[in-house]
Amino acid sequence: MPAGSVSAAPIGVFDSGVGGLTVLKALCAQLPGESFVYLGDTARLPYGTKSAATVTRYSLKAAEALAEYGVKCLVIACNTVSAFALPAIREHSGAVPVVGVIEPGAEAACRASRSGHIAVIATEGTVRRGAYQAAILKLRSHARVSAQPAALLVALAEEGVCNGAIAESIARYYLAPLFREDLPGSPPDTLVLGCTHFPMLADAIRAVLPPQVAVVDSATTTAAQVHSALATAGLLKPAGTAAGAGAPAVRFLATDDAGRFARVGSRFLQRPITSGEVELIDL
Amino acid sequence: MPAGSVSAAPIGVFDSGVGGLTVLKALCAQLPGESFVYLGDTARLPYGTKSAATVTRYSLKAAEALAEYGVKCLVIACNTVSAFALPAIREHSGAVPVVGVIEPGAEAACRASRSGHIAVIATEGTVRRGAYQAAILKLRSHARVSAQPAALLVALAEEGVCNGAIAESIARYYLAPLFREDLPGSPPDTLVLGCTHFPMLADAIRAVLPPQVAVVDSATTTAAQVHSALATAGLLKPAGTAAGAGAPAVRFLATDDAGRFARVGSRFLQRPITSGEVELIDL
Repeated sequence: MPAGSVSAAPIGVFDSGVGGLTVLKALCAQLPGESFVYLGDTARLPYGTKSAATVTRYSLKAAEALAEYGVKCLVIACNTVSAFALPAIREHSGAVPVVGVIEPGAEAACRASRSGHIAVIATEGTVRRGAYQAAILKLRSHARVSAQPAALLVALAEEGVCNGAIAESIARYYLAPLFREDLPGSPPDTLVLGCTHFPMLADAIRAVLPPQVAVVDSATTTAAQVHSALATAGLLKPAGTAAGAGAPAVRFLATDDAGRFARVGSRFLQRPITSGEVELIDL
Repeated sequence: MPAGSVSAAPIGVFDSGVGGLTVLKALCAQLPGESFVYLGDTARLPYGTKSAATVTRYSLKAAEALAEYGVKCLVIACNTVSAFALPAIREHSGAVPVVGVIEPGAEAACRASRSGHIAVIATEGTVRRGAYQAAILKLRSHARVSAQPAALLVALAEEGVCNGAIAESIARYYLAPLFREDLPGSPPDTLVLGCTHFPMLADAIRAVLPPQVAVVDSATTTAAQVHSALATAGLLKPAGTAAGAGAPAVRFLATDDAGRFARVGSRFLQRPITSGEVELIDL
């Protein structure tokens, strides 16, 4: 394929469900001239409570499916997949750059933290894997990381209960133990939203945190890394071929229930998705 | 197989995950002389948000897997599967009796309700399918059924947040609209816990309901139906072959993450399950 046609190819974005749409939103904002193929493996979500072997097996199938769309770059917009399966996906993807969300999240956290004590909330799988802990310590070897699984926040975001007393009480349930003043050492000064669902709950989370705590997520930094990976590889879409002033073209693929994907996904992407736009595929 | 060896065979119990263990608990209490094989499809849960076609496909595979253990009866301890796939499973199971949880739950509700106005909380799939509505109306044609999906209650039960302010506030979030006094007609006098996870939250649910409301679930009535199906077919284990005073023998099968199944499942079954007891199988 000549270089010109590769740079015109879409960017593949993969998540277990709709959470990765918060990352797609950042990608669309930073790369408005590109087109995207988003795959949500809605038939087999959630990945956050599954074993490493299962997550890796599912993710490789998804990466293969996206490869068939000729993607020029693969964004793993799911923390659990990034934690468990990134090396395996990279190995199987050959020359196509693969960008996960853990390293960008860790980078954003290290940039935001003054004290070096960083809190992370994520799915059970991501926390158990120690993925953020490792990525942060690689960037800042004296950092201290306090990680907490926060499964109910995923369910709240899916259900659309993102603000108000219920969302805040559950945010407090997970965060109060991390930010207790009476623990040894100083409490964290930065919180990483280590699951792509959690930016939906950012207001409720901020409402229960001490005001000096910085809240970071992976989306913006991931989009910046994708931009840089494409620029380095000479794969950015030439300016003249961009779609123009409208929103970038996105093709939505799901493995189950187009209606639910469209309904819940519209909230996550903050623009309407109709169920007719969602193509069902088998993995 | 001679009749004696069939009656010595185990009872198969199927759920998408650990929720069905609340039904297994009732089965063990009412059929202490029997042995059980419990299969939780933990790799592909939750079923509650999946489409009918997907739920049916997964359930038939699970039923086939349990058939290989020579089960003499199959209990579908999952409301979503009972709502979507019971006819298909019955068709594939030949002479083996198949008992779901919806009809027993509907029967318990009709028995408990004086006014005939019955509220149901369940997963999105079960409510959308209208399964309880249909089963209740079949038993009591003038009944009125108000159904409400309550996805967060599943997440709460899995996370072990079963009592206290958070559980009650989420129970109130779903139940208050169903039991409003200012709606036309009288409010429901009975609430069906239409998901096998929900008995875990019974205290929190009762705490936010008007005291005169009866709360019913499927577990006890399902166990009674299984007893009666086995007795009718002459398949009850002969008294002399019962295991004795201990708990019935249960073989646990899961499709992913034995550790999590054991940890969360112990709470649901209200007896310890070790991860060594959980066999991983592929469907």
